[in-house]
Amino acid sequence: MADEITIVLYLFKRLHELGIRSVHGVPGDYNLVALDSLPDAGLNWVGNCNELNAGYAADGYARIKGLSALITTFGVGELSALAAVAGSYSERVPVVHIVGVPSTISQKSGALLHHTLGNGDFSVFANMSRHISEVLVTLNDPTIAARDIDRALRACYTSARPVYIALPTDMVLRKIPAKGLETPIDLSLPVNDVETEADVIESATKMIYAAKNAIILVDACAIRHRVVDEVHDLIDKSQLPAFATPMSKGAIDETCSRFGGVYIGDVSRPDVKQAVESSDLVLSIGALKSDFNSGGFTYRTSTKNTIEFHSDHTKIGYATYPCIGMKSVLQKLLANLDFNKIRHTESAKANPPELVNEEAEKSAGNEVTHSWFWPHIGKNWLQENDVIITETGTANFGILETRFPKGVTAISQVLWGSIGYSVGAAQGAALAVKECDPSRRVILIVGDGSFQLTGNEVSTMIRHGLKPIIVLINNDGYTIERMIHGEDATYNDIQPWKHTKILETFGAKEGEYKNYVVKTREEVDELFRKGNEFSKADKIQLVELFMPKLDAPRALKITGKMSEKLNAKMDM
Amino acid sequence: MADEITIVLYLFKRLHELGIRSVHGVPGDYNLVALDSLPDAGLNWVGNCNELNAGYAADGYARIKGLSALITTFGVGELSALAAVAGSYSERVPVVHIVGVPSTISQKSGALLHHTLGNGDFSVFANMSRHISEVLVTLNDPTIAARDIDRALRACYTSARPVYIALPTDMVLRKIPAKGLETPIDLSLPVNDVETEADVIESATKMIYAAKNAIILVDACAIRHRVVDEVHDLIDKSQLPAFATPMSKGAIDETCSRFGGVYIGDVSRPDVKQAVESSDLVLSIGALKSDFNSGGFTYRTSTKNTIEFHSDHTKIGYATYPCIGMKSVLQKLLANLDFNKIRHTESAKANPPELVNEEAEKSAGNEVTHSWFWPHIGKNWLQENDVIITETGTANFGILETRFPKGVTAISQVLWGSIGYSVGAAQGAALAVKECDPSRRVILIVGDGSFQLTGNEVSTMIRHGLKPIIVLINNDGYTIERMIHGEDATYNDIQPWKHTKILETFGAKEGEYKNYVVKTREEVDELFRKGNEFSKADKIQLVELFMPKLDAPRALKITGKMSEKLNAKMDM
Repeated sequence: MADEITIVLYLFKRLHELGIRSVHGVPGDYNLVALDSLPDAGLNWVGNCNELNAGYAADGYARIKGLSALITTFGVGELSALAAVAGSYSERVPVVHIVGVPSTISQKSGALLHHTLGNGDFSVFANMSRHISEVLVTLNDPTIAARDIDRALRACYTSARPVYIALPTDMVLRKIPAKGLETPIDLSLPVNDVETEADVIESATKMIYAAKNAIILVDACAIRHRVVDEVHDLIDKSQLPAFATPMSKGAIDETCSRFGGVYIGDVSRPDVKQAVESSDLVLSIGALKSDFNSGGFTYRTSTKNTIEFHSDHTKIGYATYPCIGMKSVLQKLLANLDFNKIRHTESAKANPPELVNEEAEKSAGNEVTHSWFWPHIGKNWLQENDVIITETGTANFGILETRFPKGVTAISQVLWGSIGYSVGAAQGAALAVKECDPSRRVILIVGDGSFQLTGNEVSTMIRHGLKPIIVLINNDGYTIERMIHGEDATYNDIQPWKHTKILETFGAKEGEYKNYVVKTREEVDELFRKGNEFSKADKIQLVELFMPKLDAPRALKITGKMSEKLNAKMDM
Repeated sequence: MADEITIVLYLFKRLHELGIRSVHGVPGDYNLVALDSLPDAGLNWVGNCNELNAGYAADGYARIKGLSALITTFGVGELSALAAVAGSYSERVPVVHIVGVPSTISQKSGALLHHTLGNGDFSVFANMSRHISEVLVTLNDPTIAARDIDRALRACYTSARPVYIALPTDMVLRKIPAKGLETPIDLSLPVNDVETEADVIESATKMIYAAKNAIILVDACAIRHRVVDEVHDLIDKSQLPAFATPMSKGAIDETCSRFGGVYIGDVSRPDVKQAVESSDLVLSIGALKSDFNSGGFTYRTSTKNTIEFHSDHTKIGYATYPCIGMKSVLQKLLANLDFNKIRHTESAKANPPELVNEEAEKSAGNEVTHSWFWPHIGKNWLQENDVIITETGTANFGILETRFPKGVTAISQVLWGSIGYSVGAAQGAALAVKECDPSRRVILIVGDGSFQLTGNEVSTMIRHGLKPIIVLINNDGYTIERMIHGEDATYNDIQPWKHTKILETFGAKEGEYKNYVVKTREEVDELFRKGNEFSKADKIQLVELFMPKLDAPRALKITGKMSEKLNAKMDM
């Protein structure tokens, strides 16, 4: 290895070391020279249509590969990506946001450069990212640049949150010692205090043995903080019934007999609600109780009878144990528990109910309703290891009614809930899948309203030869908003697009794409019956799926009304 | 008038009072109830494809109508608009950004709502807008809501910069006294101190009389702070030669014999550079000396021999007079100067040279080059009162070589320079024109790279029956970046789109749109020769104009290389 390396190449080689192979973003004059070094680190440049899309794509890529990087340019570029980066912060997704900024000389002189506010203040934009970044560094000192890069990347990985790295144009090619690269970045988690942890294990063990019908409730941070393997071990060994939440959908193997369904407080299906709320101990793993993830804060579980495992603390009943992270605690519990001592009630042992909606299946009419569609695709179309991205709207509520085959990864934004997210995320996820396991299908389900925000990113999919199946729900506007307020309001209407022209317009070549228009249940099934011609086609496909304008999944109908009430409630 | 009115209707009626008729934005659950009240105030809802586009559109609308409003939703929506709002702040465009935020009750309780960072901190997003807003108010107290609304709107107008108004969901329909609406909002400028102003006038007058060949240099803030009428009066009465800058292009009547061209320091055409730099007094009105607006800071004019008129101060030679605003100073100078005492040199009296590039006109080849195109359209196609929006890139540099007919309004972002801006801005400008003077044409000239960021906003143009002429320059990627760095770099390439499919895809109906593909100078002229069939067609039109990949306007070629050098310069 050479003795010296440029700052930018040091950074890029670290990204490569962490598994990143493609970098998302948009070129801009303050990052161009940096982009020259991507190939030298074995990194591929994506080149998104705009920075917001790039940010969403980086988020989707990180959800598959564990980490991602996004490069934007000072001011105009980085601000365009903020809503996406804030979403990654909110949803706990590790994205390294690298911003090409003006040279340290220009910054010191307060020069009135383009892409500034014209007031000589070069710190404004970084400060806007401060509260949506776990760590924020500016690489303006070659003597500490390597240390700062490593510190930021470690923080990104371990906190599962975005970090912000500002790279001034005059620092890009400055040389620093290369020897740091010989030592891999330390990604180890902070070690739990031995005595406190032992006390936690002891108390937890007692409660687990004492319980007659404990359940496991797995939430978003179990995925984000990488304890899914431990969770599956715990389910297998304890044989306790396990429930997901909207944000952890897909984390539990749904073909496993212990899978009980999705718990969302009062918005849950009655059988799920009954099973969770009648338990005498909840082992809550990685909880993130946001409104839409908790049925509008309607958990009817007892704090006293809950053990909460979090990435940075543990809570047993009312007692909090700070800095006792769950990965180590779960591993010790798995090693030390006597699983023969764990009891289950008969009811909780029952296999989970089928999700196929018998009533909807038999109901009259041929319209594709949500109550029919979502259970139906789980039973009839999804395959093992699919990656399914559902947009904030009818889709990410609908997917809660779909039973997944083994190994399905679900991506959505239940907490941040930015419409348009899914199209960018699907590009990133599809690229990540292509890099790791091209046999996996990538399916995007997005509504027509949301699609209008970021649909141009389909262009990037085509550009990189990605072949997702895009199911575009045409239900004539923002149905999620209609469910909350303004059912017939014109502000929830949209301009009708010719969806079957999209792939061609964005440059898909004859023979490399296919459109379908589906308006009835029969047509849905006809499409599914095409088998691999459709389901594993070696081309990008867009299915325009017509659904009724005012139809919505059960969970959305209830949640929408809850939201409207909460918004309107006055403090008189 | 009723005794009481809701807070939201008070706000909307004030917007109407200030000339706004259409409000840009995207619906979201925290703003839906507010949107219900738009029609009651006589306001039309635009409903953009996404918030960034909406922000750009609001900026374009404000540049025509003097003020505009943008409504987004908390977190996801407002952050998506930040790059646009920051642009309005940077470029001094008054946009009222209204953000629907969660109820004061939810905020007090720190509820873990969707669209939050999940940490109970509801102030993060507003704080991100703080440094790009002249004033930031949260309407959480009905007793002072009207006062805060009026304060924010006054600040928006007088500072010519965005303001941020947070409207919690539980405050939207709270009643407040309506009587405030009986008094119009005070939009008067701060009054200059009488004695200081008299001293300024006396010193300025002496310098003007002493000069032998003074010139007038008009810049962006002359437009933004509404002294264009005073400037024209000054030119007419003094007969001094007047020069524009890239940011003030269009502010001076270019058919006026005193118009001398566009001054950009070393990037100026030689005759313009000579005329400005040989003058012995520069009357600088509304200067904004950013890099791209000043030829990379290469003004060769003397501070000692310059009088700078600004919105909030005056500078005579090296002396600054704070709080002496230009509108009043210019009016007093106009009233008191004895214009017979003003001298001109013969050279400065000469009519400005024709901009048509004789060399390019006669050059061999039939390719549409920048040196041919921009002067050519000024002479052969632009009409009086056109509104022409040029994208950051080859277009906003190219337009500097176009001589305008009378009354042309030019819109571009020389300082903020966010690519993609022009498409949103064109939607807003076209809507504003439709409201005020539908006889004006709206022409958008945008490159293929920039178009990919925000092209979906063409959908909104179609939705509202707007009929701009969109000239889409197909030069195979980001030519402005190629001029700075990476001429042949793949990161400056883009996915090729089928541009002639765009209007149809976004829902333009048969007979209501028209596409043209133009590849040669002859084809350009053929299009122009169609006369009103093309130039005043009652339909939206898209002209795909092929230009060479590595061709750029003269000013961009020079500026690009200057930027690259500045970026790379190391402080060793």
